[in-house]
Amino acid sequence: MKNILLIGAGKSTSSLIKYLRDKSEQEDLHITIVDKNLDLAEKIAKDHPRFSLQNVNIFNDEDRNNLIEKADIVISMLPARFHMQVANDCVRLGKHMVTASYISKELQAMNDEIVKKGLVFMNEIGLDPGIDHMSAMRVIDQIKEQGGKMLLFESFTGGLVAPESDDNLWHYKFTWNPRNVVVAGQGGAAQFLHAGKFKYIPYNKLFRRTEFLEVDGYGRFEGYPNRDSLSYQSIYGLEDVKTLYRGTMRRVGFSRAWNVFVQLGMTDDTYTIEDSENMTNRDFVNAYLPYSPTDSVELKLRQYLRIDQDDELWLKLEELDLFNGEKKIGIKNATPAQMLQKILEDKWTLKPDDKDMIVMYHKFGYELNGEHKQIDSQLVVKGDDQTYTAMAKTVGLPLAISVIKILNGEIKTPGVQLPITKEVYNPILKELEDYGIVFNEKEVEFQCYNPNFVAG
Amino acid sequence: MKNILLIGAGKSTSSLIKYLRDKSEQEDLHITIVDKNLDLAEKIAKDHPRFSLQNVNIFNDEDRNNLIEKADIVISMLPARFHMQVANDCVRLGKHMVTASYISKELQAMNDEIVKKGLVFMNEIGLDPGIDHMSAMRVIDQIKEQGGKMLLFESFTGGLVAPESDDNLWHYKFTWNPRNVVVAGQGGAAQFLHAGKFKYIPYNKLFRRTEFLEVDGYGRFEGYPNRDSLSYQSIYGLEDVKTLYRGTMRRVGFSRAWNVFVQLGMTDDTYTIEDSENMTNRDFVNAYLPYSPTDSVELKLRQYLRIDQDDELWLKLEELDLFNGEKKIGIKNATPAQMLQKILEDKWTLKPDDKDMIVMYHKFGYELNGEHKQIDSQLVVKGDDQTYTAMAKTVGLPLAISVIKILNGEIKTPGVQLPITKEVYNPILKELEDYGIVFNEKEVEFQCYNPNFVAG
Repeated sequence: MKNILLIGAGKSTSSLIKYLRDKSEQEDLHITIVDKNLDLAEKIAKDHPRFSLQNVNIFNDEDRNNLIEKADIVISMLPARFHMQVANDCVRLGKHMVTASYISKELQAMNDEIVKKGLVFMNEIGLDPGIDHMSAMRVIDQIKEQGGKMLLFESFTGGLVAPESDDNLWHYKFTWNPRNVVVAGQGGAAQFLHAGKFKYIPYNKLFRRTEFLEVDGYGRFEGYPNRDSLSYQSIYGLEDVKTLYRGTMRRVGFSRAWNVFVQLGMTDDTYTIEDSENMTNRDFVNAYLPYSPTDSVELKLRQYLRIDQDDELWLKLEELDLFNGEKKIGIKNATPAQMLQKILEDKWTLKPDDKDMIVMYHKFGYELNGEHKQIDSQLVVKGDDQTYTAMAKTVGLPLAISVIKILNGEIKTPGVQLPITKEVYNPILKELEDYGIVFNEKEVEFQCYNPNFVAG
Repeated sequence: MKNILLIGAGKSTSSLIKYLRDKSEQEDLHITIVDKNLDLAEKIAKDHPRFSLQNVNIFNDEDRNNLIEKADIVISMLPARFHMQVANDCVRLGKHMVTASYISKELQAMNDEIVKKGLVFMNEIGLDPGIDHMSAMRVIDQIKEQGGKMLLFESFTGGLVAPESDDNLWHYKFTWNPRNVVVAGQGGAAQFLHAGKFKYIPYNKLFRRTEFLEVDGYGRFEGYPNRDSLSYQSIYGLEDVKTLYRGTMRRVGFSRAWNVFVQLGMTDDTYTIEDSENMTNRDFVNAYLPYSPTDSVELKLRQYLRIDQDDELWLKLEELDLFNGEKKIGIKNATPAQMLQKILEDKWTLKPDDKDMIVMYHKFGYELNGEHKQIDSQLVVKGDDQTYTAMAKTVGLPLAISVIKILNGEIKTPGVQLPITKEVYNPILKELEDYGIVFNEKEVEFQCYNPNFVAG
């Protein structure tokens, strides 16, 4: 029997737990799940003979040690900052480990010891990071094997609401941590490569530098740049690439309207607002507008940000009840970002029957036999319901599949790993197809930046 | 004989040193000046019998201790972060101390000990902070003594170029640390009170929320908000005030043009630009603009920030050589702020015969006998030359005067002090008048926010 320890059983682990349950007989698994809140785990695996659900404080060294000692492999779904406590135990006790988080410097520093003990520490094997790495590397490796030279790589991911549940003007609902959405893009300029030039975008312009993306059968989306595109250059072996850009996908019009909050200053999470508890939505907006004894908040905002009165963007703001002078925000000592989050959560929370949707879009530009070519690769995954969301499937399934393949010795290269080698991505991407996670890859014309250029 | 130790003899100490020299016989002073660079001190006080100029490493504990031991009072003109080493010695050895810097928490924490030893630690006694405190508190105290109730306090200061030396379209030259000018306003939203409401302005809007200010004989200026207005509420005893605003003065049009750099992202000091050394001014601008194989940097910038081609702002940008594709910036691993500073220094450095100018403007709104009243107080100080600049005079003279008055026992309240009491501001403001530092105070109509309002 192979023992799996899953630490953390939050919303994103439903598909992970279900996969392990469905494979438990065939693979002879025993799964121990540890969390303070076991509601989701109970829903999927309660009384199942191959599961043991435990409410244990994982930060107690002795309890954690005892649990890890009994396992063959440990899946840490804790917030990234807590992984190292688990990782230290796993190395000491000689256990494999899997996470969906970015590799930290501390973890990378343990690589030699992990290799020496023959352990596989697989990381960044969820959706983004995870499926993005695997699906990108599969195409990049194919292009290089044919003798192609990579020129361009762009990659976009979005966690959105499915079209059938899309009933607001922003075409957006929270399908993941709302706080991350509110503060997205803060903390430094976005940096990327475009046609051989380094480009920099400050936060205040981030949501005005979008590009359009057409997804077959789903229409038009937009992408705004992530902060960290350049770090992928060495990981993906794209040292000679001229364009390297990673971004976040939204429905068209989202970013332009979101920019209103950025320009006003409402996404700031670094200071608290005086008397936030008693402020209405309208007071909150007015705190960012010049004083006037006569002009309305609406007029001041339109003038300040030069918004035409018949601009559709305005309807998006109204839909959020942004100018409501009765509705109190009701949070003490709140930061602007926390106040904005509250306003958005009142409108952007998924309803019980709503489905979410994951969209991913890669563009691979390359040169082969003197010709410029391009492959576009698209993925759309919809949630089944509010338990088996698209987010839970795309994060949990690659994790779960990798766990079985590590236990079976199919994935065996020891050390601190990323899913960027064939040994890892080929079998996982293949099995993901059984779950409807299928990339649509097609050749398109090489992305030309000025197709309609007429000089003079 | 009274012994004064001056630590640090940079550009802003010329008037301070000259004042002490001129008073040295009459007051029976001996002044020791310590710095790595004594050029300025030598120019003013070399071979003067009452001066001793020493090139000593002040960070050597023994040397510093020996110097402070011999002094009756110590003036620290070191960068603020180094004051505590000096302050600790002064407390231990029982010496008075004077600085032009803001009071740090560490220093405030030593207050009891300083009081117990009967020492005067005078701080914030330069220009801003310094003359601003004194001139504001004199009027505020007068208004309160008459039975007035303070309603409004606004205060603006600017370090500018004198009109006779003003020969560029920005009407600005560097008269102080250029780096502080480039990064001004960063690090958090500006917060202030306006008509009873807390208002917040993020950095990306700071230079678009200016107000106009008329200075008698000098025409129109503009002010943009400082970050820290609210902290003055308790210091000045303005708890009931409805409007509280502190700002920085520039000539009209500066802020609107400066906003171009803010919007592009060129004032960021938190990351370095790839290959900064070999970039031209034009390359630097282009790094913040979208890629285009055909459009010029100029056209892209105009479109991006919606600048009309006949906007005067554009001439300001051209005057800086911003689009020069030959001129290399030539600094390795530079941040955007460092690169921008280099471009500005090429244009905004004072010429040998140029004079600088300090402008300060306070507005005091109050209620007296049921009437709304207002006093406006203005100060303009011009530099004599490049040694005795307006900045050196306004920073150095209040410092120097306070040193003599502490030695004479005229300023005697012990503890960590600010120049906000009559004991301090009355004699100092009076003596400053002998040096042309004179506030022009006048009654004006109470600042009405909608004088021309017509309903409907």
